[in-house]
Amino acid sequence: MRQASGTLLVTAPRQGLHLITDAVAGWVAGQGVGEGLLTLMIRHTSASLLIQENAAPAARRDLENWLARIAPESRDFEHDDEGPDDMPAHLRSVLTATTLSIPVQDGRMRLGTWQGIYLCEHRRQPSGREIAAHLLGA
Amino acid sequence: MRQASGTLLVTAPRQGLHLITDAVAGWVAGQGVGEGLLTLMIRHTSASLLIQENAAPAARRDLENWLARIAPESRDFEHDDEGPDDMPAHLRSVLTATTLSIPVQDGRMRLGTWQGIYLCEHRRQPSGREIAAHLLGA
Amino acid sequence: MRQASGTLLVTAPRQGLHLITDAVAGWVAGQGVGEGLLTLMIRHTSASLLIQENAAPAARRDLENWLARIAPESRDFEHDDEGPDDMPAHLRSVLTATTLSIPVQDGRMRLGTWQGIYLCEHRRQPSGREIAAHLLGA
Repeated sequence: MRQASGTLLVTAPRQGLHLITDAVAGWVAGQGVGEGLLTLMIRHTSASLLIQENAAPAARRDLENWLARIAPESRDFEHDDEGPDDMPAHLRSVLTATTLSIPVQDGRMRLGTWQGIYLCEHRRQPSGREIAAHLLGA
Repeated sequence: MRQASGTLLVTAPRQGLHLITDAVAGWVAGQGVGEGLLTLMIRHTSASLLIQENAAPAARRDLENWLARIAPESRDFEHDDEGPDDMPAHLRSVLTATTLSIPVQDGRMRLGTWQGIYLCEHRRQPSGREIAAHLLGA
Repeated sequence: MRQASGTLLVTAPRQGLHLITDAVAGWVAGQGVGEGLLTLMIRHTSASLLIQENAAPAARRDLENWLARIAPESRDFEHDDEGPDDMPAHLRSVLTATTLSIPVQDGRMRLGTWQGIYLCEHRRQPSGREIAAHLLGA
């Protein structure tokens, strides 16, 4: 049994959901672990992770619109130091995931056929995001 | 230290939340690991996992109703290839969990007295669901 | 590779979000593991865990208010055995997290600069809460 730690650096092209499955799969494949457990943790509070439908752009757009309805930009927030998209970014992060745990077999994540891993960039102005990665296995 | 990987196959009797604690506990008990970490990941994007109140049917019904209010069937979704319950199923999956990490001791999950593990079937027409299971420990 | 299991006992001073980062970091530091994986699972269904903004009290208040809007106290719940804050406490737990997985390096959690770990106490009358902790590494 052994372990590997790393950091994935990703920058979204714009606000919204962006597939990063290939980047994660590449990192996992490079560690030489056949069976094990992958952990991902985004090191930010205004961006997040999500496992969701990987094929239909319409599903992605519906999801983005729904997040915007549930956690809308509003004048009612007390915390707006960095603009009107500041607090909604935190709330949309809460609705999605900060940490993910993914079983690995034959050197690959055991995702279902329709599952992809998304970086959710909740700020209007994207910036570089760090995802801490940890793989444990044999 | 050693690990075990498996797949739990479950089919919900109908749309909604269904306790699968016993099936998960049975799989864990069969691996002969005393202390360790259990990871569950559902391999679908229109069904999900949840740890919640295991005793009161009324709490389960309130939870189902609340999910239906927060992520309602609506004509406003662009993605409706598989019917009006398609996109809400994805959203209700986002609100709940795709992966769970559960510490194990004495061969048993360390769930609290009132905690149960639910399969959340968000489609009206249930189908067979795969849950990837991984147990690491000694 | 080795592992450690423990229980963190925490009581919130009042309903809402309370930082417990230091208590968790202390437990991790005491296990003598340099690199590894920390898992936290709260053993309750009316309190939860969350990784979010650790610095701005206004962000914390906005988050508490938003949870109260999305999962409000209401007369419409069937399950109210323990009062009007009973069912909303379960729903706010669903919106946040029951389990967290956090990579560890150099004996410290790899949290980002602005990330803190919160105990979310959703009942009006706080009680002692148990958080199962598991650390695996070397």
